[in-house]
Amino acid sequence: MAKNNKKMVDEITSMEEDFAKWYTDIVKKAELIEYTSVKGCMVIRPYGYAIWENIQKILDGMFKATGHENVCMPMFIPEGLLQKEKDHVEGFAPEVAWVTHGGSEKLEERLCVRPTSETLFCEHYANIIHSYRDLPKLYNQWVSVVRWEKTTRPFLRSREFLWQEGHTIHATAQEAIEETEKMLNIYAEFCENSLAMPVVKGIKTESDKFAGAVSTYAIEALMHDGKALQAGTSHYFGDGFAKAFEISYTDKENKQIHPHQTSWGVTTRLIGAIIMTHGDNNGLVLPPAVAPIQTVIIPIAQHKEGVLDKANELKEKLSAEFRVKLDDSDNSAGWKFSEYEMKGVPVRIEIGPKDIEKGQCVLVTRHNREKTIVKLDELTETVRTKLEEVNKGIFEKAIENREKRTYACTTLDEITQALKDKGDGFIKAMWCGEESCEDGVKEKTGVGSRCIPFEQEEISDKCVCCGQPAKHMVYWGVAY
Amino acid sequence: MAKNNKKMVDEITSMEEDFAKWYTDIVKKAELIEYTSVKGCMVIRPYGYAIWENIQKILDGMFKATGHENVCMPMFIPEGLLQKEKDHVEGFAPEVAWVTHGGSEKLEERLCVRPTSETLFCEHYANIIHSYRDLPKLYNQWVSVVRWEKTTRPFLRSREFLWQEGHTIHATAQEAIEETEKMLNIYAEFCENSLAMPVVKGIKTESDKFAGAVSTYAIEALMHDGKALQAGTSHYFGDGFAKAFEISYTDKENKQIHPHQTSWGVTTRLIGAIIMTHGDNNGLVLPPAVAPIQTVIIPIAQHKEGVLDKANELKEKLSAEFRVKLDDSDNSAGWKFSEYEMKGVPVRIEIGPKDIEKGQCVLVTRHNREKTIVKLDELTETVRTKLEEVNKGIFEKAIENREKRTYACTTLDEITQALKDKGDGFIKAMWCGEESCEDGVKEKTGVGSRCIPFEQEEISDKCVCCGQPAKHMVYWGVAY
Repeated sequence: MAKNNKKMVDEITSMEEDFAKWYTDIVKKAELIEYTSVKGCMVIRPYGYAIWENIQKILDGMFKATGHENVCMPMFIPEGLLQKEKDHVEGFAPEVAWVTHGGSEKLEERLCVRPTSETLFCEHYANIIHSYRDLPKLYNQWVSVVRWEKTTRPFLRSREFLWQEGHTIHATAQEAIEETEKMLNIYAEFCENSLAMPVVKGIKTESDKFAGAVSTYAIEALMHDGKALQAGTSHYFGDGFAKAFEISYTDKENKQIHPHQTSWGVTTRLIGAIIMTHGDNNGLVLPPAVAPIQTVIIPIAQHKEGVLDKANELKEKLSAEFRVKLDDSDNSAGWKFSEYEMKGVPVRIEIGPKDIEKGQCVLVTRHNREKTIVKLDELTETVRTKLEEVNKGIFEKAIENREKRTYACTTLDEITQALKDKGDGFIKAMWCGEESCEDGVKEKTGVGSRCIPFEQEEISDKCVCCGQPAKHMVYWGVAY
Repeated sequence: MAKNNKKMVDEITSMEEDFAKWYTDIVKKAELIEYTSVKGCMVIRPYGYAIWENIQKILDGMFKATGHENVCMPMFIPEGLLQKEKDHVEGFAPEVAWVTHGGSEKLEERLCVRPTSETLFCEHYANIIHSYRDLPKLYNQWVSVVRWEKTTRPFLRSREFLWQEGHTIHATAQEAIEETEKMLNIYAEFCENSLAMPVVKGIKTESDKFAGAVSTYAIEALMHDGKALQAGTSHYFGDGFAKAFEISYTDKENKQIHPHQTSWGVTTRLIGAIIMTHGDNNGLVLPPAVAPIQTVIIPIAQHKEGVLDKANELKEKLSAEFRVKLDDSDNSAGWKFSEYEMKGVPVRIEIGPKDIEKGQCVLVTRHNREKTIVKLDELTETVRTKLEEVNKGIFEKAIENREKRTYACTTLDEITQALKDKGDGFIKAMWCGEESCEDGVKEKTGVGSRCIPFEQEEISDKCVCCGQPAKHMVYWGVAY
């Protein structure tokens, strides 16, 4: 009845052979998603959704601790409402899904399925904000949104995806800018601490900012293959939306003022980022903070007397602190090892008759396959330590990959050469601030601007493209 | 600066004057919802959404404790997929919203926005279920759905609403029926324990069951005005969907078998049920288990030295166990009393200079406005006890209302008379099982069948409509 141990592992393409195929193999084999007959949309399966639930729980706690409240807006936006802010509608109208009929009747006005909800929040704010006493409003919602993408990939780009969208409104520009920065910092902290994924914090160039924003801040991560992934964004809107939607408040001097707004979001693409930051040729490697199973117990020779009893006892004990699974199915131990490696469970516990005799068990950490013999009465502390080690280990590995793949360049030729010799990665190069040079870099080397990082370095004093005086150091790269 | 204390309260219509207006006044005044320009859809505001979050948290825990896992299906269903099960499409097609365009392009096949997700779950199950080893699957999702209703009311009937939909699939009919009953029991337990709302458990008549179901179980609650509200449903599908969607598994004898399915759901209408079960002419009365604020601390003469310090100290202490708010705004104490009565906060704590001198504070329970003087060092225990008392008190009040408004009748004339003399309520009356008599009761008295309760009584031995031998005692009523 035992399934063939090799079968499961053999079916994954290696990342060196075909990174894109490796990625889609993992999302299927680790049972994160399943395709549907709805083109560009997917089923997020229990194991994938549990990762999202853990992400939600941690982030939602961080949002609430900083004074944010959850709300829920309608999923539909009337066409007229979407059109109120000019830049915004230009950015989104080409990629929305339109509802034209309710039952058998044609609607008087088309409704789009929200691609993002600035317009709905603005309409609501116009209704509920009258006085300076009504400010700020620090709202967030956890919903799904729809963007009619032509090319889709699980988690990274799909027609419907899950996200949170924060929308806040403040009395002053300064408060709103502080909020924009605060939320970017929360995202960065979450990615680095809970997902063990290093990120670069910075600001997007003019050409790359959100439709309707004054400025867009982003965190950028580097994937294992050297491609960049935008992991979260935070936008400052000034009072542009407030003017378009006629939102104003009476200040203490009885003057009518337009308030200032922000929005910020992260999506299920974070799951894609986790896969491509930490995964290896045996499958997923999950950061302990969001792993649905933090430690799996695999009984060895489980038919022998006392093995399952002891395994259950350990499970009981560990469950007080960790998310634990005991696999007592009739698959072979070897099959189980492969299965939970595929699923990226951070710590595996093996326990068999000989271990029980000696009052010990074997711990194996997923990311480096290191084995440790542990006394049963020290198990809880050791699992705790090992989970911290995994988190630290995969973070350092990701930092190492990013450093290896970050190239400081002073000319376009250097960029081309670095990409050719060392493969995709972050290019650090100077920029004069002109859009023509941004386009020039893209045309001639293939890399686009990712962000102007807050932590600036002076690679040279000249723009990498035109040679004129440089204004900023920019991270460039090929993006997911 | 203090606002007029009377103003807020005066603006609510009394429930005796106009129950429907009283209801909509509360949803607005307690800041549960706000209307939008999207007809039939609403904004669920922070205070309303926090109630839903508490409902979710408790129910999700109960689902997971019984082995269920969360997933996420697409929000769109291709027209062809919706049409696969004949009864199901007939029931839902007239009330779905249709997406016909993506960006500027017309879609080859229309997509409906899910009104419910049986078809998507079936498609997924057909993909992932092959052997008896793959069964059961116990899935649930927390999403919003859309039904193009003509007449809408906040929480009770809206074009978009939030819900959870459980979808399970089992090897045998018996297992599936057990699941259907188990989930109905979980809903009933949740409503009675966490919402303090008594419910009748029963089965729907043939004419009233879910489109595509073999049988529909429901919990029915009686609102303060004597109208009935269906608070949750659980459906048994047999293998009808499995046949339509070609889902089958290989059993241990290597035979191909169609599995058996269930689905079950509760929605944000539970918030409407809470309002209409417990609310009064001062506003909401919230069950402690789902109240966003379980106890509010209102400082008296807060400008006096030491008052706010002490209030903060109490808040700190109580926050370890309860959801606490300290209102130190510059509104008057009277205004604050009205505000938190409107918001249904179960326990109010008043603390002023004289209380502090005596080492005490004043506790007021929302549902009966009972005042208790409490020593500060016994505050935590007393709040705990008071919250239990509130829960018990409002449950008993609801039971009392239901008993007062439940009329056993043996003839149609008795039904008409009871409704005329005592107002709307549950009618207990016998039924022969024929649809013509079900329709007859409705036509002649205005009440429809709510459910055939599991706990049967013999009111008489004849059908209340035709006088033929009765098969069931039925609860009849006017439904929301």
